[in-house]
Amino acid sequence: MLTTYMPVRVYYEDTDAGGVVYHARYLHFCERARTEMLREFGFEQQKLLSKYHLGFVVRHMDIDFLKAAKLDDALVVESSVVQVKRASMFFEQRILRNKELLIKCKVLIASVDLSIFKPVALPEEVKQVLTQ
Amino acid sequence: MLTTYMPVRVYYEDTDAGGVVYHARYLHFCERARTEMLREFGFEQQKLLSKYHLGFVVRHMDIDFLKAAKLDDALVVESSVVQVKRASMFFEQRILRNKELLIKCKVLIASVDLSIFKPVALPEEVKQVLTQ
Amino acid sequence: MLTTYMPVRVYYEDTDAGGVVYHARYLHFCERARTEMLREFGFEQQKLLSKYHLGFVVRHMDIDFLKAAKLDDALVVESSVVQVKRASMFFEQRILRNKELLIKCKVLIASVDLSIFKPVALPEEVKQVLTQ
Amino acid sequence: MLTTYMPVRVYYEDTDAGGVVYHARYLHFCERARTEMLREFGFEQQKLLSKYHLGFVVRHMDIDFLKAAKLDDALVVESSVVQVKRASMFFEQRILRNKELLIKCKVLIASVDLSIFKPVALPEEVKQVLTQ
Repeated sequence: MLTTYMPVRVYYEDTDAGGVVYHARYLHFCERARTEMLREFGFEQQKLLSKYHLGFVVRHMDIDFLKAAKLDDALVVESSVVQVKRASMFFEQRILRNKELLIKCKVLIASVDLSIFKPVALPEEVKQVLTQ
Repeated sequence: MLTTYMPVRVYYEDTDAGGVVYHARYLHFCERARTEMLREFGFEQQKLLSKYHLGFVVRHMDIDFLKAAKLDDALVVESSVVQVKRASMFFEQRILRNKELLIKCKVLIASVDLSIFKPVALPEEVKQVLTQ
Repeated sequence: MLTTYMPVRVYYEDTDAGGVVYHARYLHFCERARTEMLREFGFEQQKLLSKYHLGFVVRHMDIDFLKAAKLDDALVVESSVVQVKRASMFFEQRILRNKELLIKCKVLIASVDLSIFKPVALPEEVKQVLTQ
Repeated sequence: MLTTYMPVRVYYEDTDAGGVVYHARYLHFCERARTEMLREFGFEQQKLLSKYHLGFVVRHMDIDFLKAAKLDDALVVESSVVQVKRASMFFEQRILRNKELLIKCKVLIASVDLSIFKPVALPEEVKQVLTQ
């Protein structure tokens, strides 16, 4: 199972008046980590968009918000590819502060032709890398 | 079951380079709708914060992203209080464009004392209104 | 001089750990107000985009952050069209809480063909309305 | 004159339906860079907040949006401390993509006691570092 780790720093922009990170921001952190995983294997979203009109669209998320991150925290997003199908990918992601688990989520991503907004098979080159 | 409806307009800030609303933005729309539901019954978050140090923290979300909203769309967020417990509330929310269902989610909210970040019983006055 | 007023409510998403609205959020509020001004006169951004490939791009902003808005504040964005040129518009905008001035800014907007990202003349119908 | 350089990657969250970075996001990038400059010299915002109730509040910004950044762009934020006064700092910042200048701005930051929201002298240790 392919697993990557990406550091994220918490800035003022990520926090809210409750003094902690605004809940929807963790989805941003997870999306950055999935993007960096693809980039690490040579797939830039901008290139997938121009080459195949391909975009990755979140279809379903299940998120446990266990503990809150705070301003200046140095977090790590752990991302694992759990399953790759013809036109979708299933990830499990966890956000940690040192060894402490803050967030865990399951994410179903669909491969979509953004010019017509219809599901489309993952490019073979992407599939091969993610299932290695 | 208490149900409210709140209109949301989609602006450029809500969209991304895929041409549709960025997935995490739907969580903002849902949070605005829960806030307006409370306000409708006389509970402003700022006042709950100063009066009880009380904040509502999202503990769990399960979200289906069925269809994408686009720039300038006029959406409606439908919010239902499904269950109210001692220190938590369970909502079901749906985002619609006319009769078309775009997003549906289940949200578990905990009532938290933000000065110590510990669960705390919902104020009786809030509980009464939400279970009416 | 054409002037419009748009209400904005402050939500948790707009605030940061300093307890007030995050500074960049006021730019969102101003952009929403310019969008609503255009919509009021029959011009939807989505339609301008599909009809003319036209987008309005911020070229310059000068912003005074005089006072901070807080969670739950009911604000008003006052927007005035100061000048309309061939391919640009100049706005003055102010954000108020009751009679109290919080933010004032000057905004230069360029009319751009987004398919080639080059300046393009404002559609005559837009120009007529804004200079009435 | 103290000058620092911070890399920023553009993600989907930063872009809008126009296909480029949403204008207000550049203010986030600039704020991250000012935060990292302070961190580099040992000053974390969270610690300044707990030690002195100190927050840095943007009072004025003048921004030229010269060219647009796009999805996946690797940007650099160049930040220079131009002037340090008793309770304020004046920065000039530029956002570059390779050698290409995209954004330039002037930023006036006030040092504020966030418990009372009043200006307060910069801590001597911060002042010494920034004027070195």
